[in-house]
Amino acid sequence: MEALWDALRFDDDGLIAAIAQQHDTGEVLMLAWMNRESIRETIETGQVCYWSRSRATLWRKGERSGQFQRLVELRVDCDGDALLLMVDQSGVACHTGRRSCFFRALRNGDLATIANIEIPPEELYGKDQDK
Amino acid sequence: MEALWDALRFDDDGLIAAIAQQHDTGEVLMLAWMNRESIRETIETGQVCYWSRSRATLWRKGERSGQFQRLVELRVDCDGDALLLMVDQSGVACHTGRRSCFFRALRNGDLATIANIEIPPEELYGKDQDK
Repeated sequence: MEALWDALRFDDDGLIAAIAQQHDTGEVLMLAWMNRESIRETIETGQVCYWSRSRATLWRKGERSGQFQRLVELRVDCDGDALLLMVDQSGVACHTGRRSCFFRALRNGDLATIANIEIPPEELYGKDQDK
Repeated sequence: MEALWDALRFDDDGLIAAIAQQHDTGEVLMLAWMNRESIRETIETGQVCYWSRSRATLWRKGERSGQFQRLVELRVDCDGDALLLMVDQSGVACHTGRRSCFFRALRNGDLATIANIEIPPEELYGKDQDK
């Protein structure tokens, strides 16, 4: 694992950007952040764990929503300051209940919604919508 | 365009993370950063322009290497703090001469190189290797 840690360049907050991509379809699901601890846990458990900047805590993806990401492969970019997580996403990645967080597209100067809600958020998080 | 600017949440440095994905193959090419000006220019010209954090200047992708990214569609994530650029990449995206910057994968505890150099860097940038 030394090769990995040597390659990574964390930012001033100890974080690195991580893209999650569905391994077989190529769909980009989300962008989030990881620190050393979340990377270590992700590799050890095979279940993706991010660092939540807003909550300043480890964010075990799927812990509340049940929509887990199984790690298939971890890739590192040329500068070592971004990760590409090839994952197998169960259900949906987005807290809005859509498969991908990138469900808005700029079209004709406006933002179009290009994906449907597959699981209502209240089913994912209960009525308090707590993520 | 107001809808786009209203949706975006720039960080304290006025930047937002942008993932470039080849629009037809789904290949994730790179992660870079954009500011308002680079987003505006990208939309106006249809050629992707980033913000180079290391050089603190607009980074017109391909300006020196000739490896341009044509914008096919700009997408915004649920929180408005990440962009997904669907692009048509001419040649290679990575300054190492590989198609994607994510050419290293963690396998058996080591980093394996999983993509070949398609264009030697000296062909992209000349002998001084200036990006």
